[in-house]
Amino acid sequence: MTLEKPKKTHEERMARKKAVMDERIANAKEERGVLILLKGNGKGKSSSALGTMARCVGHEKAAAVVQFIKGRRETGEFKFFSSHPLIEWHVMGEGFTWETQSRERDEAAAAHAWEITERLLQDPNRDIVVLDEMAYMFKYRYLPLEPVIAALKARPRHQHVIITGRVMPEALEEIADTISDIKDQRHAFRLGVTSQAGIEY
Amino acid sequence: MTLEKPKKTHEERMARKKAVMDERIANAKEERGVLILLKGNGKGKSSSALGTMARCVGHEKAAAVVQFIKGRRETGEFKFFSSHPLIEWHVMGEGFTWETQSRERDEAAAAHAWEITERLLQDPNRDIVVLDEMAYMFKYRYLPLEPVIAALKARPRHQHVIITGRVMPEALEEIADTISDIKDQRHAFRLGVTSQAGIEY
Repeated sequence: MTLEKPKKTHEERMARKKAVMDERIANAKEERGVLILLKGNGKGKSSSALGTMARCVGHEKAAAVVQFIKGRRETGEFKFFSSHPLIEWHVMGEGFTWETQSRERDEAAAAHAWEITERLLQDPNRDIVVLDEMAYMFKYRYLPLEPVIAALKARPRHQHVIITGRVMPEALEEIADTISDIKDQRHAFRLGVTSQAGIEY
Repeated sequence: MTLEKPKKTHEERMARKKAVMDERIANAKEERGVLILLKGNGKGKSSSALGTMARCVGHEKAAAVVQFIKGRRETGEFKFFSSHPLIEWHVMGEGFTWETQSRERDEAAAAHAWEITERLLQDPNRDIVVLDEMAYMFKYRYLPLEPVIAALKARPRHQHVIITGRVMPEALEEIADTISDIKDQRHAFRLGVTSQAGIEY
């Protein structure tokens, strides 16, 4: 009969985990800008992009945000981040796509937001660029995809880019380094909780 | 033969979308603190929690963060957020669980972090509390679940709480308002990209 030693078992298990992590980290050696896509119906895509941006800025990196779809209310993220000296912040300027009710106006706003984005993707001094809700531009065909793919491929090697939106075009997924698919398992809306300042905007 | 009018079709489609959204928002009327769980293997859980916290602080709400698992390096999020007057920031003080190699030390650190958390969950002046990587405490049985559930249920009605971690205990899911399950569709690690300042920490 052997006596169980839970403490040793735990330490062995942790040591194995550490060995696996160490090996994985040892094999991943390249440092470069990554393209991160945050997609899916679940809550947390834009907030995740902005949290990662904050992490970058914490390391003294320069950031830029372009919000492609945006409600008319002043958002908490705008109030919190936009005056920071290392953060450049752009809002497309129209309300939600389904609120403007005008394709022409939406297309003009999208074209203007893309102009700004193109400049940011050429700027070696911008270390991270967040393109919030940009995926909708492709879904509703407000922007052609090809120039966006070309600009992403040609961007400075160290520049990180995060794109959010429910549905991502396949061509964008092909060139991405990290893709998180955020599933909506439950949402407070369906429990009767309204959109609240600080949580939804 | 009828002539297609793409513009009208688009506007009709958008108007329908707007009607659906309006109805949904009209039916969800309650304002209260929500419990948000961010789980899954994908990248973006902690950053999403911190982005939502920033959104809250942008609306002048008071926040607190307890990081239950934390590497030894100084993180970008700590540098960016921790000195803000509306943000209280706590780090458990030990390295990754599989790096400390001592169950006793981990349990003591977890108990201390829970003491701090319990106080925050009773404080009506804390509008949002982020419990980063707390789910691991239950997975490795560093903390009992029951007192945590009880404290979450008894917290001030307006207080938002966000808990992150790969796997959530069922009892926690039962009392949650919003659950996002972040799937790892692709990760730059597997493409040979190393852990980088501003992206992973």
